[in-house]
Amino acid sequence: MKMERVAESLKSKVMSADAAAQLIKTGMVIGVSGFTSIGYPKDVPLALAASGHATDLSIYVGAAVGDEVDGELVRKGLIKRRYAHQSGKDLRNAINAGEIAYSDVHISHFPMHMNQKTGPNVDVALVECTAVTEDGLYLAASGGTADAAVRTADFVIIEVNKNLPMGLMGMHDIFEIGLPPNAKIIPITKPDERVGTPYIPCPPEKIAAIVMTEGHDEPQKFKPASPAIAKIGENVVSFLKGEIAAGRLPEDPGPIQSGVGTVGNAVLSGLASSGFKGLSMYTEVMQDSAIGLIEQGVFNFASTSSIALAEDTKKRFYENIDFFKDKIVVRPQEITNHPEISRRLGVIALNTPIELDIYGNVNSTHIMGTKMMNGLGGSGDFARNARISIFATESTAKGGAISCIVPMVSHVDQTEHDVAVIVTEYGVADLRWKTPKERVELIIENCAHPDYRPMLREYYEHAFEISAGKHTPHDLEQALSWHQRFLDTGSMKK
Amino acid sequence: MKMERVAESLKSKVMSADAAAQLIKTGMVIGVSGFTSIGYPKDVPLALAASGHATDLSIYVGAAVGDEVDGELVRKGLIKRRYAHQSGKDLRNAINAGEIAYSDVHISHFPMHMNQKTGPNVDVALVECTAVTEDGLYLAASGGTADAAVRTADFVIIEVNKNLPMGLMGMHDIFEIGLPPNAKIIPITKPDERVGTPYIPCPPEKIAAIVMTEGHDEPQKFKPASPAIAKIGENVVSFLKGEIAAGRLPEDPGPIQSGVGTVGNAVLSGLASSGFKGLSMYTEVMQDSAIGLIEQGVFNFASTSSIALAEDTKKRFYENIDFFKDKIVVRPQEITNHPEISRRLGVIALNTPIELDIYGNVNSTHIMGTKMMNGLGGSGDFARNARISIFATESTAKGGAISCIVPMVSHVDQTEHDVAVIVTEYGVADLRWKTPKERVELIIENCAHPDYRPMLREYYEHAFEISAGKHTPHDLEQALSWHQRFLDTGSMKK
Repeated sequence: MKMERVAESLKSKVMSADAAAQLIKTGMVIGVSGFTSIGYPKDVPLALAASGHATDLSIYVGAAVGDEVDGELVRKGLIKRRYAHQSGKDLRNAINAGEIAYSDVHISHFPMHMNQKTGPNVDVALVECTAVTEDGLYLAASGGTADAAVRTADFVIIEVNKNLPMGLMGMHDIFEIGLPPNAKIIPITKPDERVGTPYIPCPPEKIAAIVMTEGHDEPQKFKPASPAIAKIGENVVSFLKGEIAAGRLPEDPGPIQSGVGTVGNAVLSGLASSGFKGLSMYTEVMQDSAIGLIEQGVFNFASTSSIALAEDTKKRFYENIDFFKDKIVVRPQEITNHPEISRRLGVIALNTPIELDIYGNVNSTHIMGTKMMNGLGGSGDFARNARISIFATESTAKGGAISCIVPMVSHVDQTEHDVAVIVTEYGVADLRWKTPKERVELIIENCAHPDYRPMLREYYEHAFEISAGKHTPHDLEQALSWHQRFLDTGSMKK
Repeated sequence: MKMERVAESLKSKVMSADAAAQLIKTGMVIGVSGFTSIGYPKDVPLALAASGHATDLSIYVGAAVGDEVDGELVRKGLIKRRYAHQSGKDLRNAINAGEIAYSDVHISHFPMHMNQKTGPNVDVALVECTAVTEDGLYLAASGGTADAAVRTADFVIIEVNKNLPMGLMGMHDIFEIGLPPNAKIIPITKPDERVGTPYIPCPPEKIAAIVMTEGHDEPQKFKPASPAIAKIGENVVSFLKGEIAAGRLPEDPGPIQSGVGTVGNAVLSGLASSGFKGLSMYTEVMQDSAIGLIEQGVFNFASTSSIALAEDTKKRFYENIDFFKDKIVVRPQEITNHPEISRRLGVIALNTPIELDIYGNVNSTHIMGTKMMNGLGGSGDFARNARISIFATESTAKGGAISCIVPMVSHVDQTEHDVAVIVTEYGVADLRWKTPKERVELIIENCAHPDYRPMLREYYEHAFEISAGKHTPHDLEQALSWHQRFLDTGSMKK
């Protein structure tokens, strides 16, 4: 039987993007599908932007999506509030300027808040789909908060994208946890377990409009790995091999979670070249490298909330979707990032900070403590609940003007309690079981850039002197002076 | 059948405390039972201290225990390393002086590290028991990390305390999660579900010594609630009633977690006087107020890792233990504080900070950013995974010389992402869904002490001015100046 994109009984709901956009009114909350620019609606947002009839919109979406939502609607000034993760330039500027209200929240917490209705409820869910049946919605290549949006919305607008391969149907696993006191156990004990339905359940009467589209997701762009980043990858892999050799990790060290970006890609490449086979991922985003590693057998399986690929890799993935179908499951972010599962599976978490300090606190979001870069994302979900929480970064930024290791971070997103291992191109600091004073030594001597080591030692020695009999020496007058110096002079160097 | 304290087949292992202490050698890791001064061994530590033959000891224990361990052994200089939570004065001073190595860790993480053996393994488990059989160890009135210690230790020394009521047998529920990739689902879906055994399984051959004792736990001491603290209790209860009225919480708002101290007691009293009935607790420590509320029917059930009572209440509890037996379960801290359960049950978490800042970041551990007070405890476990995470504190300390609300906290234990609601004697700031700039307004105007409001406003207005186009305004030169002023002058006031 040939599957149809739109079930016969729903075809009467098909309309133009312009007509569907008219269903959205000023002040509404729109729950949008998509995660890291994959599987987000395109034509209805563009129609909304062109019409401009609806203003003061609130957008709820799992993570940063494409320019049709996070760019066009922003530039037209139609968005009043925006949750949860973001990374686009125009949106970020509007957030920093206070033109769009934004509150940063853990990826795993946001759908919980939507489901528990602790904030304004979703009026309309706007969801890109591969197909829609009387059972419900078959998503594109992401999970995100689409399920929470459909569940809680008053009505649903669907974009059925004819460019998506029908083979995406069946790749998702949608599981509804429910609300306390009736919240369910999430019965996942292995990354490849399927515990829900391949579609988001949705009664047909809730669907207000279906729009047929042919747009494309924004392709992901990756910088090639610098020699420093390649070295970080090697250092992480060497650390993991050491843990296995010492018997602290099994031969298969556990599902890998890897944050978005070149560092994550470098680590995955390092795993491949080190002879690992048959590993798995339990992560929020799969990038190009992960697709390659499945093809090579380094990964047997990946659980993710988004398959975010560059153009060429996406083409290969779509053309060979039958090969990948039993090797990937796409889940809602509430499940991919849920503490229950990360902890049970023993995820190895790998994330990238903006900066970290000599005691192991991590800043993931704020440049110089004030300017929001990207949102927190899932870093906190995984760092807190992982078997080993690794943060990896180059030791400097801005051509050396910024040390990524500072006396005190200017904003804390992950505390010292959630940061187990720090890796830079210079080495590894294993902070587990270490006192603050022991951490300082490891972080400065193993991880900091040699240019900054004397300055860091000088800070610490002075702090130690004036903090006699204190657990965590600091000189509060100088703790943030490196950031202030950068603001004043353009460099953290004296 | 009359239960015996020590099974017949184990009686040959009974010896004096001095003889048992001799089994402990220099450099050993001792896994100690107890949690918040309840159910810890007494005679063997005292014998160790008196003998002094074993030095450089590492002590692993769930949370601060009594003076026999956290005082005597410290003053004799026998402890080299100490994990995880602590609160005793001598121990704290030794930690701050760097004489004892201490690394602060989430209550839920520590037994995970013990089980996964990421640090030095336990040589000997030293456990106070009500009784011991061939099945295993029946604990005193706490759970803590005793199960992890027995599981991972090379050998076990038991103190059987004849002063403990036999009725404590059956009050515990010990569940072994296991290690990834074979970690089990924790099948608790209600606070009163029992999923394990009432004893810690232990093969008889692992038991090296049994010591018969008659000591007493240090009674808990509580300050009476000041009018300010009583007002905090009222404000919390009024907030919860508002959430119920708005339909954001069910009539039974969910199991209560309450941190140790007078604020927690005040909130529980407030629940009682507001007519709540049939509630439950899912917490790490039960205090006197909780026992009273069970007697009154305000609580139907409490799940805890410790029953920490003042002398009179303990007497009442022991004498009426049959009444309490089906109303309390004592669990290992790995289970009471596990994110899987807090999140599933929708725990209402109530914790007390040292200080918090205008953006909602919380310092739970470090005075003026440097001096360790008590450890982190379970605050992070519950704050991150609760349905609603409340932090409640008086608005000032040290007779007004310290504002508990500052421009920037001097140490971060709970980030802005994990702090939902702030309560002081002046009011409530509901931070959910709020931007940093919106949070400032709520925290200063609703919660700060009126004496400090003008100073806080002045800081923020200046920070806002110099941080144009930034999400989280700060003046890094002044952000920690309140703490520095206190260090210099003894007051945060100008």
